[in-house]
Amino acid sequence: MLGRTYEGQHCSIAKSLEVVGERWSLLILRDVFTGAHRFDELQKSLGITRSVLSSRLDHLVQECVLERRRYQTRPDRYEYLATDKGLALWPVLMHLLDWGDRYYAGKSGPPRIVEHDGCGGRMNSELCCDTCGERLWPQTASVHPARLSRPRSRR
Amino acid sequence: MLGRTYEGQHCSIAKSLEVVGERWSLLILRDVFTGAHRFDELQKSLGITRSVLSSRLDHLVQECVLERRRYQTRPDRYEYLATDKGLALWPVLMHLLDWGDRYYAGKSGPPRIVEHDGCGGRMNSELCCDTCGERLWPQTASVHPARLSRPRSRR
Repeated sequence: MLGRTYEGQHCSIAKSLEVVGERWSLLILRDVFTGAHRFDELQKSLGITRSVLSSRLDHLVQECVLERRRYQTRPDRYEYLATDKGLALWPVLMHLLDWGDRYYAGKSGPPRIVEHDGCGGRMNSELCCDTCGERLWPQTASVHPARLSRPRSRR
Repeated sequence: MLGRTYEGQHCSIAKSLEVVGERWSLLILRDVFTGAHRFDELQKSLGITRSVLSSRLDHLVQECVLERRRYQTRPDRYEYLATDKGLALWPVLMHLLDWGDRYYAGKSGPPRIVEHDGCGGRMNSELCCDTCGERLWPQTASVHPARLSRPRSRR
């Protein structure tokens, strides 16, 4: 079985993939960015086993990509929030989204739309708002299922 | 064993990861971008078995991320080139590079430097040249081991 490290690769891309390249890790981060912070929410969204999700979350917390915070006691329950280091992976995710949209969306169009909270513009391929030009980040953009986004003609 | 598809995920990020998220796939693309086009060059750079490399290359060709081109007959030998669809993944790789540089490079600094061929500037976190501001792509930028890059003070 192949391990998850890339031995002999003195390269920041390989190092990044050792941290977030494992199966499901980037999709966990996607869900945290779009508002799923609790274990059960993440499990429902991803449809994976508790043990796989738990293992990925532990790894992301250990690498300071996510922060684990208790939101309830008796019993203790935790939520997961993106750290600054986690937020810095937003461009990786958004370029994967853009690429998937471009080459795999098909006739029905992209399944999700990224909108600028400020002005309602959509994110372009340079991760900027196509209306006002502002660079978009998780704090200033929302990801919606395409069917729920505002029609283009009304903006 | 977990498969390589993300069933139930109606999402362009998940779709992209089905195509290029498998172990080694993005590092193959990295090497093609930086000039390794032949099977033996790729195998030497990555240090993986012929069968794993062959399987990943076949998948990337099948998905039109790479193009397979014969450069020799008797015996037939092939090289692998990035298609436009492959080139469109450059921002994903460069943001992974930037993130790895930022959080894992350590005291010795980034192992690789991306330079603008036109003016010798370095790529910034928005994938633009830090000297002239031009957006950089594989056709206009080169990736060097840090020790071979031009000293900053000479520009």
